[in-house]
Amino acid sequence: MNNIDRHVPEVVIKRLPRYYRYLDELLKQDIQRISSKALSEKMKVTASQIRQDFNCFGGFGQQGYGYNVAYLHNEIRTILGIKEGYKTIIVGAGNLGHAIASHEGFKRRGFELCGIFDNSPDKIGTVINGHTVTDIADMERFVRKNGIDIAILTLPKANIQETADRLCDCGIKGLWNFSYAELKTKKAVAVENVHLSDSLMTLAYKIKQGND
Amino acid sequence: MNNIDRHVPEVVIKRLPRYYRYLDELLKQDIQRISSKALSEKMKVTASQIRQDFNCFGGFGQQGYGYNVAYLHNEIRTILGIKEGYKTIIVGAGNLGHAIASHEGFKRRGFELCGIFDNSPDKIGTVINGHTVTDIADMERFVRKNGIDIAILTLPKANIQETADRLCDCGIKGLWNFSYAELKTKKAVAVENVHLSDSLMTLAYKIKQGND
Repeated sequence: MNNIDRHVPEVVIKRLPRYYRYLDELLKQDIQRISSKALSEKMKVTASQIRQDFNCFGGFGQQGYGYNVAYLHNEIRTILGIKEGYKTIIVGAGNLGHAIASHEGFKRRGFELCGIFDNSPDKIGTVINGHTVTDIADMERFVRKNGIDIAILTLPKANIQETADRLCDCGIKGLWNFSYAELKTKKAVAVENVHLSDSLMTLAYKIKQGND
Repeated sequence: MNNIDRHVPEVVIKRLPRYYRYLDELLKQDIQRISSKALSEKMKVTASQIRQDFNCFGGFGQQGYGYNVAYLHNEIRTILGIKEGYKTIIVGAGNLGHAIASHEGFKRRGFELCGIFDNSPDKIGTVINGHTVTDIADMERFVRKNGIDIAILTLPKANIQETADRLCDCGIKGLWNFSYAELKTKKAVAVENVHLSDSLMTLAYKIKQGND
């Protein structure tokens, strides 16, 4: 059965990266199965919730056996579409661009960094983690030539919409947007906005509740 | 009625920062009320979901009027505990620490940056956004003296647990953890882990589905 044909509700999709991260840890430790109780405690969701979630894509646990880690890991990779691998560029070589270029985890998850772009003469030609920062004037050509899938937008808010338009015009498939600006894009281009302040507000709530 | 006495389910809490961000935008535009339909379209959740969520804390919309923006904004601020304001420090003056110190939005949300710490002689004494980077040896004294609530952990994974232990011992209330390490902390200290790769995996899923 093709995964696209399966209906996996959006609330379940939102939990998948977290399941994936944990299953990835288990695989690295060569753990082949996990009880629903252990998984439930680790994930801080009920065993019943996990059962419902995994049932959406055929990840049935077995009584007395638990869940097959490699099977679930592979299914979630397939559903999330990270199995195929994605080519990425970073646009904006400031502190955040630097930090993301140095992130070890993305490559292991199938996201390959292919280039870094900026418009500042101070930054063009500098090297970040093995990548020479290239003039943003060359961005479209690079995206087309190398079949780049995802642009990571870490440039200032002021330049973001124009840059997004240029990327959409040269066939980018997804924008990972750190700019806190709402982007208007063509329907065919996926956008994921990162709002770090949401996470900080959640921490504030946890502090207020006096628990984690 | 005290907000702590109201039971607001965790799934609703997780949506509050997003509602808050949007209501904040409306307030800035001096918009005083919003129809449930407009709010629903903007938030990409059903009007019925919004109604259920807001009912949890008395944010009842009125037929033909919609929602009172200032009331909801204030209620969500209170529930999230961001009304009182929080004092923060950044521990780790690398690229990510730099990027967060330069973030304009946190202060407006009630999170005041009071200091930046690092253990590297190259970084100690440098100035980031008006804050002089201080030797981490002085961290505990600073936290106690200034009543710091939240430590933003942007230091390497290797040093993270020891640093977290030190912060817990000197009375920190919350840790905002960017290190990708699982922290063990005292029960009384709240922890919020930032996993940027979750967001990137969600983008991959959206690309695969061919919509955003």
